[in-house]
Amino acid sequence: MHKAFAQICVLGAGLLGSSLLMAAKKRGLCGRAVLWSRGEATRAKARTQPWCDTVFETPEEAVKDADLIVLCTPVETIPALMEQIAPHVGPGAIVTDVGSVKGAICAAGAKILPENFVGSHPMAGSEKTGLGAARENLFENRTCFAVPCRAEPRAVETLTQFWDALGAKTQEVDAAKHDEIVARVSHLPHAVANILCATLAQSPAQWKEFSGNGLRDTTRIAASDPELWRQIFAQNRPALLAALDDFSAELSGLRDALERGDDRTVKNILSRASAYRSDWPNP
Amino acid sequence: MHKAFAQICVLGAGLLGSSLLMAAKKRGLCGRAVLWSRGEATRAKARTQPWCDTVFETPEEAVKDADLIVLCTPVETIPALMEQIAPHVGPGAIVTDVGSVKGAICAAGAKILPENFVGSHPMAGSEKTGLGAARENLFENRTCFAVPCRAEPRAVETLTQFWDALGAKTQEVDAAKHDEIVARVSHLPHAVANILCATLAQSPAQWKEFSGNGLRDTTRIAASDPELWRQIFAQNRPALLAALDDFSAELSGLRDALERGDDRTVKNILSRASAYRSDWPNP
Repeated sequence: MHKAFAQICVLGAGLLGSSLLMAAKKRGLCGRAVLWSRGEATRAKARTQPWCDTVFETPEEAVKDADLIVLCTPVETIPALMEQIAPHVGPGAIVTDVGSVKGAICAAGAKILPENFVGSHPMAGSEKTGLGAARENLFENRTCFAVPCRAEPRAVETLTQFWDALGAKTQEVDAAKHDEIVARVSHLPHAVANILCATLAQSPAQWKEFSGNGLRDTTRIAASDPELWRQIFAQNRPALLAALDDFSAELSGLRDALERGDDRTVKNILSRASAYRSDWPNP
Repeated sequence: MHKAFAQICVLGAGLLGSSLLMAAKKRGLCGRAVLWSRGEATRAKARTQPWCDTVFETPEEAVKDADLIVLCTPVETIPALMEQIAPHVGPGAIVTDVGSVKGAICAAGAKILPENFVGSHPMAGSEKTGLGAARENLFENRTCFAVPCRAEPRAVETLTQFWDALGAKTQEVDAAKHDEIVARVSHLPHAVANILCATLAQSPAQWKEFSGNGLRDTTRIAASDPELWRQIFAQNRPALLAALDDFSAELSGLRDALERGDDRTVKNILSRASAYRSDWPNP
């Protein structure tokens, strides 16, 4: 069982950061919950939340007395934020993040906060963003990747116990393997849903109304924030390019089989897909 | 308000056919509900359903006294089934189908049953198939396309009123326009979800467990029946090829922008996609 942190500091009050504090408070894993957010309006809103004890004006102040610091800002901003807070992080504090790509962030963590930093990535997003969408059960039954970087095994263990206590299933991986996995199971589906919407946006607007639940579900994640995902794609460029190229090869395979009337190959592709999709692990 | 049919005959007791009889009975739109299905086991199961009055052993017997006949078998089988039943269809009976592609089926209908046949396509499927998945509310708030073919306007009007009475929103279109629309809003998403699954099936099986809701929803429809969808793709080949080529062009655009680090173009594609997906009409 995990011992509570005396003070958890979240930097960035989006869906993940807000949900994390809400969930930690609810489960008694957090003495004081403190927060910093870049936006004045978000800070004002955070001050009215029952799960938030103090809202700070700067990241430096916010991290000072925390024994767990969680960086929840967009992925491209995280390395600079680490530099900014590093002089103010307590010696025994664990620093982590919830970024969707771990290569650049873990390299920065290993350099800037080598003993304190462990990367995290809970597979619990939504196309809805911001503090208003926060849910205390967001992490339940979700995989959370933990990337040790150069931290002490004790810090990795403590962080793993924390995520597990929030209901997540923590998986330890290195940064390169993490980025390869999420390029396939997360960033590729995001790219595909976006490409599908960009394609359909060329058709008459009314056609959207004719669609069934298939199109609705296939495209849901394309409603996500474009700037957040531009950054994620850019940070995971090589692994995502490889995934897109494999997808593209399968697409050509189906397209060409369809064009030449090769029913057997078309059926084979659909059968492989259907077999993959049956018995889905996370209903 | 629609006057009830005295006897509705459904040929093929899959999800759509079973749901249609169930819904029509529930809403008082059907005196007697009669059914034929190719499979002996399905016929036996249908005999125990409260919404089914008689199950016949042959399509010829089943259609005999019906004033509405609905062909609900896989799309490639429909023209031959029309030939088979044509001599037994009553003079004033309306014959329709629920096939996902209308070109070949409407051409057959216009030739074989010119006065009786009106094509239908309710945009209400599911990855779940068969009589066991039937729901009386399957058609509620769904678009249903009606394709007049060569039938009398009176037959088209009666069928439109029937679908509307089941809760659908009926749209009259010609077969070519129908096939172009569904190639985009239905068959393309199905193809894309299948290609995504076929690609991911190449990764270690465990990775699937790491995924979040994004992959789950993006791929849901890939669990559909491979043979049904092979037939749909084959029947809508030219329109689907055009849609796949447009999708492929968008895919290359994103891929190449990502490779050359062109953040602006990547952001532009994601923004177009997000704008298309926001304010979804069918939640």
